[in-house]
Amino acid sequence: METRINLPQSEMPSAWYNVLPDLPTPLAPPRDPTTGEILTPDKLEPIFAKELIAQEMSAQRFIEIPEQVKDIYRLFRPTPLVRAKRLEEAIGSKCRIYYKNESVSPSGSHKTNTSVPQVFYNKREGVKRLSTETGAGQWGTALSFACSMFDMKCTVYMVKVSFEQKPYRKILINSYGGEIFPSPSDKTNAGRAMLAKDPDCKGSLGLAISEAVEDAASHDDTKYTLGSVLNHVLLHQSVVGLETEKQLAMIGEKPDYLVGCVGGGSNFGGLVLPFLPRKLNGENITFVAAEPKACPTLTRGAYRYDYGDMARLTPLMKMHTLGHAFMPAPIHAGGLRYHGEAPIVSNLMAEGLVDARAYYQNDCFEAAMLFLRTEGFLPAPETSHAIACAIDVAKNAKPGSTVVFLYSGHGLLDLASYDAYLRGELTNYELPQECIDEALSVCPTIAG
Amino acid sequence: METRINLPQSEMPSAWYNVLPDLPTPLAPPRDPTTGEILTPDKLEPIFAKELIAQEMSAQRFIEIPEQVKDIYRLFRPTPLVRAKRLEEAIGSKCRIYYKNESVSPSGSHKTNTSVPQVFYNKREGVKRLSTETGAGQWGTALSFACSMFDMKCTVYMVKVSFEQKPYRKILINSYGGEIFPSPSDKTNAGRAMLAKDPDCKGSLGLAISEAVEDAASHDDTKYTLGSVLNHVLLHQSVVGLETEKQLAMIGEKPDYLVGCVGGGSNFGGLVLPFLPRKLNGENITFVAAEPKACPTLTRGAYRYDYGDMARLTPLMKMHTLGHAFMPAPIHAGGLRYHGEAPIVSNLMAEGLVDARAYYQNDCFEAAMLFLRTEGFLPAPETSHAIACAIDVAKNAKPGSTVVFLYSGHGLLDLASYDAYLRGELTNYELPQECIDEALSVCPTIAG
Repeated sequence: METRINLPQSEMPSAWYNVLPDLPTPLAPPRDPTTGEILTPDKLEPIFAKELIAQEMSAQRFIEIPEQVKDIYRLFRPTPLVRAKRLEEAIGSKCRIYYKNESVSPSGSHKTNTSVPQVFYNKREGVKRLSTETGAGQWGTALSFACSMFDMKCTVYMVKVSFEQKPYRKILINSYGGEIFPSPSDKTNAGRAMLAKDPDCKGSLGLAISEAVEDAASHDDTKYTLGSVLNHVLLHQSVVGLETEKQLAMIGEKPDYLVGCVGGGSNFGGLVLPFLPRKLNGENITFVAAEPKACPTLTRGAYRYDYGDMARLTPLMKMHTLGHAFMPAPIHAGGLRYHGEAPIVSNLMAEGLVDARAYYQNDCFEAAMLFLRTEGFLPAPETSHAIACAIDVAKNAKPGSTVVFLYSGHGLLDLASYDAYLRGELTNYELPQECIDEALSVCPTIAG
Repeated sequence: METRINLPQSEMPSAWYNVLPDLPTPLAPPRDPTTGEILTPDKLEPIFAKELIAQEMSAQRFIEIPEQVKDIYRLFRPTPLVRAKRLEEAIGSKCRIYYKNESVSPSGSHKTNTSVPQVFYNKREGVKRLSTETGAGQWGTALSFACSMFDMKCTVYMVKVSFEQKPYRKILINSYGGEIFPSPSDKTNAGRAMLAKDPDCKGSLGLAISEAVEDAASHDDTKYTLGSVLNHVLLHQSVVGLETEKQLAMIGEKPDYLVGCVGGGSNFGGLVLPFLPRKLNGENITFVAAEPKACPTLTRGAYRYDYGDMARLTPLMKMHTLGHAFMPAPIHAGGLRYHGEAPIVSNLMAEGLVDARAYYQNDCFEAAMLFLRTEGFLPAPETSHAIACAIDVAKNAKPGSTVVFLYSGHGLLDLASYDAYLRGELTNYELPQECIDEALSVCPTIAG
């Protein structure tokens, strides 16, 4: 029996799946951050490519993947679906566990699935340079990779604490030809203002977003890009679920559980959304979202309108949120340290279509070590949440169930986290309720 | 057209190819390091597993791969053969360039192909712990991975210059449960002697081998393992060439050039040896070996009996050598900093069956950057020699030729080297003739 299911490139999806027309309840519209009015697409044009704005609001169920994007996808896609037999045996599971391996991309994570089309559309519209922020560095790496493929300039603002903790990220981004600044930087008003206030500021994702948005808004040849949360990002990530569906069909499997970690929600959405029509059609497929107890957006956040960033520059989105002013504990899964959640995933959660679970960081590293010592590969700290959850699910599911989890990225540039874990230096943060209450108390009050 | 050729697992080779019976001239026998007499197998038993000694001298053309080894191989094998179309376009080549991607293994290189069987046979013979040396860290990682899969203890002596340049290697080896010491260490007589002589010694592969061999020889429950040079290592690596042969056949391709980098010769041997019968049968296949100008074993070394290590503990082998006392310049391709060369590869070189070429380190990094910015992936510094050579070959070959090179490993744990390259800090070492003459002057004189 094959334990690694490879889809031929001829079977690679030719269109992304857009879930918007299939949502049981329509998505609440984004709103203007200053007026609170429903946002018109033209308001987004100073910072986003027109085609991406159109995709953000599209009612079309399938959107064709451009040939030039497929050419770059073919450098690493389709990605393998792998039966984790040694992991099954180690936990004494009677389920079949599969993982969809997105770590095989050049940048080492699923982020490449959306960086490639985002760069492509911007290039086609005459943009010369892209700006973005990055936390742990996966998104900044993926964007610089894609910019390298299409010969575009790339500027990354990386949260200073991560910039200092993960020096290899800077080198890899530089190697792809991207420039990278620790945020707060002296390149923007937002950065300079913060440095004037606190020269030792270690930065935050919210501030880095503000810097990247300001950079794009203040340069005619530059646009901004975001690596998660937005509808068009989840659209591009659907290639993951579409491939998984074909691979499961190749071996006559039907998924009972689909598991992914959630930060902004793009890898989880990419895996599960293509299965939503089947689920709504009565198939018994459980969508399980795994998040950190230190940043429990889906399990303990409110479902309401909030800003995407700390400086209140982004549109207001209706989503699960811990409050835009929320500052998460310094867990090593930097990609999951986000106060909000994709509006699409939040919408499904509110409909009762997503089962969300929260895990302690040490339990996730323990799961990662078990995976490493059975399946052999080193997962990213974010991915370790999906592994912990898949093990949890497989241990409690009906014997014979099929559990598929998304292996979103490798941890080879996060080895310092493993060092800290092996030394027993990691803390099991759990968020006190008063922190959530306080952060939510400064959120805007908008009905809907 | 598919640009990534995946072999189904059902087509994974079930036996390794042993080139010994097919060599045009028989291999010169290994000799006792103290007496110079032809070595009997029992002399090797204190440090090597019996089955590996048998394989080292086997006359059998194919040796079956045990089921338990295939189980671990299936975690990552077969590996893809990839058409590097964007690289072809970038260099304006009229050749088709393919790369066999061994970087997809858990440890990130081809070394896993031999670490798995070596650990398996030792475990079956009751060994509790394995010792080894590592240069850049690829072999140490591969051995610790395999030990983790078979629940064995693992001790790695890592050349100090690399240990300091590549701190993530230590963490990864620790994560697999292995222990690791910078060499020279205070754990062995060989290490202590060197430290007494030069406390700042940055180490060499030859010295690290001495430490690992001494560790095994002085502990009853411990055996030594070697990641290159020996016949049984090249035997295990033949899985690479056997798969490549099937993959090329799948797409109707015949190779004109097979290219690999050479340190001890195992990845190169693994790729080319299975094609030797076809070459000897008249097919026009050129085997091209790429080595550093700083350590030009094949292009400028002598073909004679020499020790495999600095402390003269290993058997004498007839091979291309720069002298066992040779201390190579600190180039970043640590895996290629070895004074000797696999006896099998040396034998073929002496027969005129291998075309060896030497490259400067900066030219290799330049090739690596071109690969990164066309094919997207970051190669190991060792692998960059194969890329530089494949480009060299493709630019000069007859239009329409098929060039296959072995992508032996990724460079994600070698990013500090890229930083040095991007800063323009790398030196183009070229070895002065008097260094070679001096190192060879202390080699033993044995006819044959």
